Amino acid sequence: MSKRLYIQDVATRDGFQIESAFVPTEDKIALIDQLSLTGLAKIEVTSFTSPKAIPNLRDAEEVMRGIRRVEGVEYTVLVPNVKGCERALACEVDEINLVMSASDTHGLANLRMTPEQSLEQFKAIIEVTSGTDVFVNASLSTTFGCPFEGEVPEARVLGLVERLLAIGVRGVTLCDTTGMADPGQVERLCREVSQRWPQVVFTAHFHNTRGMGLANALAALNAGIDRFDASLGGLGGCPYAPGASGNICTEDLVHMFQRMGLETGVDLDRLLEASARLPELVGHDVPSAILKAGKADRRYPKPKWMETP
Amino acid sequence: MSKRLYIQDVATRDGFQIESAFVPTEDKIALIDQLSLTGLAKIEVTSFTSPKAIPNLRDAEEVMRGIRRVEGVEYTVLVPNVKGCERALACEVDEINLVMSASDTHGLANLRMTPEQSLEQFKAIIEVTSGTDVFVNASLSTTFGCPFEGEVPEARVLGLVERLLAIGVRGVTLCDTTGMADPGQVERLCREVSQRWPQVVFTAHFHNTRGMGLANALAALNAGIDRFDASLGGLGGCPYAPGASGNICTEDLVHMFQRMGLETGVDLDRLLEASARLPELVGHDVPSAILKAGKADRRYPKPKWMETP
Repeated sequence: MSKRLYIQDVATRDGFQIESAFVPTEDKIALIDQLSLTGLAKIEVTSFTSPKAIPNLRDAEEVMRGIRRVEGVEYTVLVPNVKGCERALACEVDEINLVMSASDTHGLANLRMTPEQSLEQFKAIIEVTSGTDVFVNASLSTTFGCPFEGEVPEARVLGLVERLLAIGVRGVTLCDTTGMADPGQVERLCREVSQRWPQVVFTAHFHNTRGMGLANALAALNAGIDRFDASLGGLGGCPYAPGASGNICTEDLVHMFQRMGLETGVDLDRLLEASARLPELVGHDVPSAILKAGKADRRYPKPKWMETP
Repeated sequence: MSKRLYIQDVATRDGFQIESAFVPTEDKIALIDQLSLTGLAKIEVTSFTSPKAIPNLRDAEEVMRGIRRVEGVEYTVLVPNVKGCERALACEVDEINLVMSASDTHGLANLRMTPEQSLEQFKAIIEVTSGTDVFVNASLSTTFGCPFEGEVPEARVLGLVERLLAIGVRGVTLCDTTGMADPGQVERLCREVSQRWPQVVFTAHFHNTRGMGLANALAALNAGIDRFDASLGGLGGCPYAPGASGNICTEDLVHMFQRMGLETGVDLDRLLEASARLPELVGHDVPSAILKAGKADRRYPKPKWMETP
């Protein structure tokens, strides 16, 4: 295997938004600037949502305008509505990421919109981007299961992808929002969408809530997916499972792919330097395995008694 | 996929041996008795090693004689030498598990024996089992990498497996002792051994040190392996990576396989009841993901505001 994989970090958006403390704007900017030099394909910088809804990201404009953009890195932002899109466009983002749920109950609980209402809103947002070259991505939450409703039928997911593409979305992120996906399900769905829509940019977005995050990434890879969301340090979390892991960890994912001989474009050592700053930034330990254990090529000295003649 | 998988728990041996506190004998017996009713295929009960070397397992005889054996469950014990084997046979174990390293340095550091010396000792141990129907398994540490030497060539591993079989070993456990394996490597080696020796009982034994534990289990499954060691609650650890995860967690592994529609024979709810007792037994939190997050079929109530008309 020698194909290039694309690693997309979501820590400064998906991670920081649920932290109990606000990460200072200059720290956010410094972290994103550091991440820009690691070889990541894309960085989800922030969210242009209401400061009241997500106070931790109330500095979206300052962050987006303050970072030093690096050629080859795409800078994307989450956009919940037309107003957010206008704010994002004013900051000259490369991509907007729309978000909707595949299930009615999660959509209502999380966004106060059914999937139908989300699709209507998306049309209005996409209208605003016309005449620009901003890439439009949509993240489909609860693709692999809903914490309220349970199973989300594959046919429903495929139908929603089809409608997203019909209204002008060019990339779709399949999100396992609360860590319900298993590798069998992931492989089936990812193979289906890759084969049905080979021209569409699909991203797999997994959470490690139930320990299956990297196994699911492996299954997606086997099914033809080459883009992966992940979060530096494994930041992020699941509001429905306090104490459980959140997003899969970027350095753990990159480490696995590299050990498998796959090309990610990422300099893992630089990524680990960035991750090592997180505990101070967020005020707590992070779930990263590689930060704790070191890379698999780490060598240990022999026990001292073996050295003596 | 509908083949039966075999789940083998090692918590009371691989886990308890490195705990800082001794788990009382009656608690060990009660836990094993509980595990015996969960549908596990095998339980690694204890280790018949010197009480000085591993004081936590100094009660090997009492535990092995005190448990209530359940038909269909195999009870195995680790045996380091002829004396340990004689003690194990006196307790009428179903299986003895021998352990050696695939790499010289780890063998010397951990067992004070090179692989050659281990093989010689195994011959003497196997001699002691002749005339009994005790199954002889051998665990090959550092199969996927050595923390001192680094890469362990596949040819070396295959050569050692061949020699183990030649001296009368009937089952071989491929151990990723310090969590260095990646799914690509696992799939290659597991496919090779499954195809070369279809009559041999191979077990995959992974650690989650670098977050790849379940991904490696998935890779082994894809390569034809149907037996997996795992540790209740994810007990166990890696002396070379303080704070890092240890063995893959039995309930997380069973949960993944069940979600994939595979038959493990294990009653996951009973297993979780057993795991829930661990934090009190060992005096600390355990890495189990399912214990924290619940199974993927867990449902949450809608937010209260959605209920009001």
